[in-house]
Amino acid sequence: MGRFTFGVDIGGTAVKVGLFSDTEELISQWQIPTRLVDHGAQILSDVKIAAEGILDGNGLTWADVAGIGLAVPGPVTEDGIVPLAVNLGWTDVNVRDEMKKLTGIERIAVGNDAKTAALGEYRKGGWEAYHSMVLITLGTAVGGAVILDGQVLSGAFGAAGELSHIQVDPHETEPCACGRCGHLQQYVSTEAILKRYRQRCGCSAEVPNDLSVKDIFDAARSGERTALETIDEMAEKLGSAMAAVSCVIDPELYLIGGGISKAGEFLLEKLRAEFKKQAVPVSAAARIEAAKMGNDAGIWGAMYLVRDFSADRR
Amino acid sequence: MGRFTFGVDIGGTAVKVGLFSDTEELISQWQIPTRLVDHGAQILSDVKIAAEGILDGNGLTWADVAGIGLAVPGPVTEDGIVPLAVNLGWTDVNVRDEMKKLTGIERIAVGNDAKTAALGEYRKGGWEAYHSMVLITLGTAVGGAVILDGQVLSGAFGAAGELSHIQVDPHETEPCACGRCGHLQQYVSTEAILKRYRQRCGCSAEVPNDLSVKDIFDAARSGERTALETIDEMAEKLGSAMAAVSCVIDPELYLIGGGISKAGEFLLEKLRAEFKKQAVPVSAAARIEAAKMGNDAGIWGAMYLVRDFSADRR
Repeated sequence: MGRFTFGVDIGGTAVKVGLFSDTEELISQWQIPTRLVDHGAQILSDVKIAAEGILDGNGLTWADVAGIGLAVPGPVTEDGIVPLAVNLGWTDVNVRDEMKKLTGIERIAVGNDAKTAALGEYRKGGWEAYHSMVLITLGTAVGGAVILDGQVLSGAFGAAGELSHIQVDPHETEPCACGRCGHLQQYVSTEAILKRYRQRCGCSAEVPNDLSVKDIFDAARSGERTALETIDEMAEKLGSAMAAVSCVIDPELYLIGGGISKAGEFLLEKLRAEFKKQAVPVSAAARIEAAKMGNDAGIWGAMYLVRDFSADRR
Repeated sequence: MGRFTFGVDIGGTAVKVGLFSDTEELISQWQIPTRLVDHGAQILSDVKIAAEGILDGNGLTWADVAGIGLAVPGPVTEDGIVPLAVNLGWTDVNVRDEMKKLTGIERIAVGNDAKTAALGEYRKGGWEAYHSMVLITLGTAVGGAVILDGQVLSGAFGAAGELSHIQVDPHETEPCACGRCGHLQQYVSTEAILKRYRQRCGCSAEVPNDLSVKDIFDAARSGERTALETIDEMAEKLGSAMAAVSCVIDPELYLIGGGISKAGEFLLEKLRAEFKKQAVPVSAAARIEAAKMGNDAGIWGAMYLVRDFSADRR
């Protein structure tokens, strides 16, 4: 059996492929666009071609490969089947079997992207001293993952960590993407922050069309009142959801990841204050920090996924 | 070593002591009042006396006893110390050492009462086929406990399962007992239901002083509008909190316990409907049932606690 491992992170716009040594070092990584034609039928063979490019570049062949881990944007069954991945156009794709056929590699592990990234963040980000961790990813979408005793929690129906749909305001009348109202992501996603800032500005002010969340954070930092109100509301709602999470599992550590986490300490300080104000007093001792691994969390997590994957579960 | 085990549930008004055989059968149980004098200094020796009464009655001695499990209304450290149990008047009571001194028994396990009762309910109630379970106890207080893979979750700071302080309405201006506003227990505890029913009735109607929650449920069942609104609001708020819990850990089973759960299917049906309406669709498949063990859950849980308690942790 080979000594090298691939960690693959399949996203809606790009696929990242990383080659790792048996000492868990990242040797090379490639990024290719996600080909969505034919309901994503080309994606896995594109992964194979990219992986072979990396092997070639390092003077290696498939015989040197011990296993492949893949992260996929959707639920994944224990058998490595993806029932539905809307962003890829996939329905009932048996990722494990297809990758086996394409590469001849027996050891294939498949996981949900958010959960796999949480595993990568936890282990490569240096958080393993914490017994319990909740990762909240703030970007176009709002993701979440729960790690207890080093394991990513799946939940009975695969929905553990779906923090974006925690209701933080039952009086909200505008619907969330899911159809119900007042959910966390309606206050903290990129789109939500832009929308709520524009609503606050009203018709009177001129808001540039290409306004970004970074612009709003910059304005808030320089004391612009409307921007500050928007960010304060966001921190309040996220603090409220985190307080609820602590009532359930009382974690030791919260990590904030995703594009919006680039706002850094300015956001983290507001969040820490809101969480301290809203959480049950003992739980308020939890740490709140920025995630470290950025977009690489997925390939690292996929690598750990396949390394942990016991042979008898293939 | 003896073959019998004591399961002891220490409450603010009564202490229950159960003697169990090595085949996990309840042989006898006694209930004694909790003596709160001298900051509860007599409680553990009262437990010893009650236990000896049970042993006598069964022709046994302490030599026949393998261990003692105790459930206490407060947080418990890994060493069996209770830093604070307000209802008993205890501060820094080393329950494990004191029980050892009193009885000569080496194997003593001590646990928080809500978590211990959850363990008793899970194992004796016949729910062990479920990998994840959340117990919600509705009474004078609102309690909660989370069981994952057969283990009661403690949380990093001992607050896992503190569901009563999940915020379900950020616009509420009346404070919870904890000082913050809009928490679950402000809508679903015995006191809360009575208070909210009275508020709905206003000054105009005559509400008897000795009105009970059972009376309100009976009135709601017979179609009385104000009672029905009160119970519907309660189910809506509890459904909202359960939907939030499912976003975090996505459990397979919810159990409703405590005095209010005697309302039976009338309440459960409302809860199932609210949960289905509010939860993330996949999580809505979770079962919602009534707890079965009633007030005996504690002594059973305490018995399991000491049976599971490995000798190397003494």
